[in-house]
Amino acid sequence: MRTTTPTRRPTIADVARLAGVSPSAVSHAFNARPNVSAATAQRIMAAADQLNWRPNVASRRVSGSAGRSLGLVVARDHDSFERDPFFVRLLAGLTAPLAEIGWSLSLTVVPPQGELGVYRQWWNEQRVDGFVLVDVRRSDPRLALLEELRAPAVVLGSPPAGSSVPAVTLDDQAALEAVLDHLADLGHRVVARVGTGHALAHEVSRAEQFTRAARRRDIETVLLHWPDDAPDPVRATLEARRGATALVVDSEVMATELVAHAPELGVSVPADVSVIAWEDSFVSELVRPRLTALEAPVETSARTVVDLVARLVRREEVASVVVPGRRLVVRESTGPAPATT
Amino acid sequence: MRTTTPTRRPTIADVARLAGVSPSAVSHAFNARPNVSAATAQRIMAAADQLNWRPNVASRRVSGSAGRSLGLVVARDHDSFERDPFFVRLLAGLTAPLAEIGWSLSLTVVPPQGELGVYRQWWNEQRVDGFVLVDVRRSDPRLALLEELRAPAVVLGSPPAGSSVPAVTLDDQAALEAVLDHLADLGHRVVARVGTGHALAHEVSRAEQFTRAARRRDIETVLLHWPDDAPDPVRATLEARRGATALVVDSEVMATELVAHAPELGVSVPADVSVIAWEDSFVSELVRPRLTALEAPVETSARTVVDLVARLVRREEVASVVVPGRRLVVRESTGPAPATT
Repeated sequence: MRTTTPTRRPTIADVARLAGVSPSAVSHAFNARPNVSAATAQRIMAAADQLNWRPNVASRRVSGSAGRSLGLVVARDHDSFERDPFFVRLLAGLTAPLAEIGWSLSLTVVPPQGELGVYRQWWNEQRVDGFVLVDVRRSDPRLALLEELRAPAVVLGSPPAGSSVPAVTLDDQAALEAVLDHLADLGHRVVARVGTGHALAHEVSRAEQFTRAARRRDIETVLLHWPDDAPDPVRATLEARRGATALVVDSEVMATELVAHAPELGVSVPADVSVIAWEDSFVSELVRPRLTALEAPVETSARTVVDLVARLVRREEVASVVVPGRRLVVRESTGPAPATT
Repeated sequence: MRTTTPTRRPTIADVARLAGVSPSAVSHAFNARPNVSAATAQRIMAAADQLNWRPNVASRRVSGSAGRSLGLVVARDHDSFERDPFFVRLLAGLTAPLAEIGWSLSLTVVPPQGELGVYRQWWNEQRVDGFVLVDVRRSDPRLALLEELRAPAVVLGSPPAGSSVPAVTLDDQAALEAVLDHLADLGHRVVARVGTGHALAHEVSRAEQFTRAARRRDIETVLLHWPDDAPDPVRATLEARRGATALVVDSEVMATELVAHAPELGVSVPADVSVIAWEDSFVSELVRPRLTALEAPVETSARTVVDLVARLVRREEVASVVVPGRRLVVRESTGPAPATT
């Protein structure tokens, strides 16, 4: 459990000094008073940006012009955003508790190289009161930036070691035990884990947990990554599985492609190979065989994120939270291990 | 083609008069100056709300505290939001052109009865500079509200007759001709259209166009609605199809449920019945048989929406736009009409 410590924020006097104006000119500029020229206002804005200063939240509250908004900056190409049912569940899950406190969700989808600038801009322009971070990577420059900006922020998913940003994580350990128990009961002795291959912080911790938990059941593990660039990623994955009779697949979209396409390559699911998806959505019910998948309490996680960000905005101390309630939904894509040939 | 006419906006003097204060007090209140008490500020805000007055955009621009945001208020329950791949494509499609002009997307998902209050609040609190409206219904109170607020707004989809809000629509007529040509070529003589059953404005125009275009090809039509409340909507739809050998299904999620579940009810797709989805996404490729579907230029439509809203914000005159480029993607769910028994 980590906590955040409020640190000294720059003051209006610091901004005025840097811009070479009086503090009241800074206030006038931020309040769009006509007695500050556009050129001076721009110089003041630049100084404020440089110091990461913003008018304080209480006065913005009175003015009715506060952001009252949670920022979500998704750094993905459109295809990987659109094909991931997790996002739309997350969006719905965030907007409900936000609406209850009168906030909206500020969303953008940007190429990865553009994301830092968006955090900085949204914060400096008071568009948002805080951020939720997704797809956090092993060495993620956003964490340092948000500490520098002193912007309230919460990570959804495992943060890299040493981060002081509070995180909301799912109980992946319990989920993993349920998955491996299910496969052990079905007689599987070699199980492959198929990750996304991106350097996401949660990928690393999932792979390590996976290997340890499998070893405790005398299950051999094969660690694979989804070969995005292969002409036929399903075929490439099936060929690389080195005797594994079950695949635990990190993303649901990869898992649905596997169950839909494997039979066309002469591999029957679950007769030849069992497939489990690490996340669940309505798509699991649309493919045949229906996908055995780990349900995640996305709504509860999203609500917890909103609660933590709101508390950070109120300058309360906040600790990371592990949300329980993952559940393995057994459908049709898992079955007994095939007899060894 | 309709155009919008800018009308007189209330002035700061109107707000001051109603609140019983001086115009400069109104300005101070909106600019969070300390010389206005919280009680007075609240009275001023209430007066401004009542008159739908906001400080003008130009001065907010200088202050750096403008919303610079497009509002999207989705009035759906979470399930119908999450299961509709159209939304996630729309979100991605909107955020790209918004990012280019330095705007973000303000999103909320609310129960239908709460939506009007959100439009009013976001506009009055300057959170957004304009709105995009989706799921517009035959008689939709949002259109009158947005005219009353004088808020820039663009409808995505067919607006009800008589609306003065500009709309971005797809070229459904050309799409429909392509669908019916495809089915006529395959020998289908009775075709059912399966609508969502919601009173959406586009539903009505699609059903009318459908019947007319089918009649020109001597194709008989059956008009159905997806029976959401039935224990098995696929079975109910198949039983209600009255001799139709092809189903043109308004939503992709309904179409994917049909192709996935029909074989389990003894109805083979496409041997017994062909299925076409009126919208396309990655899910069409995941089900078997793969779904024949109408691709829509969602990205182009979204970009057009952003362009129109930005022009309305600049007080330019704006006309409705029909976006061309729908395309029928023939996959595996359509085939020759079965021989009459």
